[in-house]
Amino acid sequence: MTENICIIGSGNWGSTAAKIIGTNVTSYEEFNDKVYMWVHQEPIKDQNLTDIINTKHENVKYLPGVKLPENIIANSNLLECIEDATVIVFVIPPQFLKGVLRQMVGHIRLDAKAISLIKGLDSSFSNIRFFSEIIHELLNIDVSVMSGANVASEVAAENFCETTIGTLVPKNGKLFEKLFSTSYLKVTIVNDIIGVELCGALKHILGIAAGIVDGLNLGGNSKAAVVRIGLMEIIQFAKIFYPEVQKETFYESCGIAEMISLYYAGRNRMLGESFVKTGKPFSQLEHEMLNGQILQGPITIQKVHNYLVHKERIREFPFFDAIYQITYESAPANTIFKNI
Amino acid sequence: MTENICIIGSGNWGSTAAKIIGTNVTSYEEFNDKVYMWVHQEPIKDQNLTDIINTKHENVKYLPGVKLPENIIANSNLLECIEDATVIVFVIPPQFLKGVLRQMVGHIRLDAKAISLIKGLDSSFSNIRFFSEIIHELLNIDVSVMSGANVASEVAAENFCETTIGTLVPKNGKLFEKLFSTSYLKVTIVNDIIGVELCGALKHILGIAAGIVDGLNLGGNSKAAVVRIGLMEIIQFAKIFYPEVQKETFYESCGIAEMISLYYAGRNRMLGESFVKTGKPFSQLEHEMLNGQILQGPITIQKVHNYLVHKERIREFPFFDAIYQITYESAPANTIFKNI
Repeated sequence: MTENICIIGSGNWGSTAAKIIGTNVTSYEEFNDKVYMWVHQEPIKDQNLTDIINTKHENVKYLPGVKLPENIIANSNLLECIEDATVIVFVIPPQFLKGVLRQMVGHIRLDAKAISLIKGLDSSFSNIRFFSEIIHELLNIDVSVMSGANVASEVAAENFCETTIGTLVPKNGKLFEKLFSTSYLKVTIVNDIIGVELCGALKHILGIAAGIVDGLNLGGNSKAAVVRIGLMEIIQFAKIFYPEVQKETFYESCGIAEMISLYYAGRNRMLGESFVKTGKPFSQLEHEMLNGQILQGPITIQKVHNYLVHKERIREFPFFDAIYQITYESAPANTIFKNI
Repeated sequence: MTENICIIGSGNWGSTAAKIIGTNVTSYEEFNDKVYMWVHQEPIKDQNLTDIINTKHENVKYLPGVKLPENIIANSNLLECIEDATVIVFVIPPQFLKGVLRQMVGHIRLDAKAISLIKGLDSSFSNIRFFSEIIHELLNIDVSVMSGANVASEVAAENFCETTIGTLVPKNGKLFEKLFSTSYLKVTIVNDIIGVELCGALKHILGIAAGIVDGLNLGGNSKAAVVRIGLMEIIQFAKIFYPEVQKETFYESCGIAEMISLYYAGRNRMLGESFVKTGKPFSQLEHEMLNGQILQGPITIQKVHNYLVHKERIREFPFFDAIYQITYESAPANTIFKNI
């Protein structure tokens, strides 16, 4: 059987994934060389983004300066992209996922499998849900996840890094390893989807927290303490609500490596710092600093807090609570250490 | 019984410890208010450092700008300092420890107990030893250890941080918690001396490694990967050679928090970066950049490598080996990722 790959998304991380996958598929018999990349169409000067990608082999808008393999076929027609796909790679902003999934229902192959590179949490009413669950729910296919300390531009520049793939189907794990593993991207497979996804989602809270410490002009000791304490609450969150999560997962790239990289990288950190220094609300800062782009940090803080209050467990998470009080209830920034 | 405290050392971390201890002893009945600080005498202009500390209540050379409590008594006579001490706090550069201990033998109280704030490894022939062992060996008293993400200047500025105390005697743990705990320094006690000390010593290797990544002009992904992989080898080192070490210790401030702070702080990181960028040997860089101060990174790389070779276990530590090959055997810096 030949595996046909389709990448849903063409931002900087999606285009980086395309660069890697497009190269890797040519090394194995089992993959169709042609890889589809679904692109949300937009005009760039007088051309369509898809046409530019297919002729120039570069995503000039979201990953400029990086050559994409010529076997990457950009297409803005979702159904054409997924028609024959046996492997679907989701790498789009969280807020667009459900709309895309609804269009896909009934149009995918029954033997398809998916991997989600999306980092975040969905919430409905007072529940929280992982994107792997939502993909599975709507498409009824097996879903794996991938997360790690993977700033897209650095991966695209072929700087060494690691990533973690969580899957419950070893065969799929091997397949995804072939798709993503390169000399500069070391893949580790773990038998734990929720653990990987939980780290990828809740790390956004820690990014904001690290930014708050920077906003207070404190130094590295404080920031290291805040990230460590935040990781402890992530682990506790897993223990209480997802006891199947394996403690070893936190030692992988999706866990401590991602937390280490929060030390200074990341837009959530920058947002947290500006929040403290300017006193402006997140939405205004996103508008001013990020051209309206919505970050996952502020949303995640709120979702996790609502969930913990609803479950009557908020007292067991004094750090997450402190971050919420600072960012949504006007508590002074220096109360971040109050209940530690 | 009244506890008499003596601090052995007066560098920036020793003076910071003095600031905290001098304040804390006045809050508890059980402590003698007078705290001795042994100072290696040196002239500052036309005065002795001890006289300046005792009149100005400031260590103008090693912690300028920070007021020390007036109950801190600087004294350059070691035997006078330790004569009545029931609690001895060691916070001197590793290379001076044995000389100081030898002078102390036979002159301390039998009921004294010690805590070591020294981060590093001793080595004799092809063995490695922890400083807590050496203190115990020479003085035959109980020794606890303290380590964490504690850059002295930031602690002295009262920026929030955490620290970990390892002790096997719960009563001493409580005592040291009273001595060190403040609103800005959160102390956690663990029943694991070697785990705490191992982290404090081997983290020096990771500092150099983080610097090598900076020297290669790679980004945060690579640095996070290197620190994570280094931590995994520290944990493996413990598992093989010190199976009594508790895995939970690595989650404390002495473990992941210290590793997080290596991300950019620290002189070892700076040294590693300059090593790659200039190609000069460590000793020359220490001379040029640090006024001849000897850092623990280069020594620790060598000691750990010698030990692993001697134990015929070096193959199980490809990362520590790579760092050694780069820093002592002229391997190119980019081979840091070779065997990962």
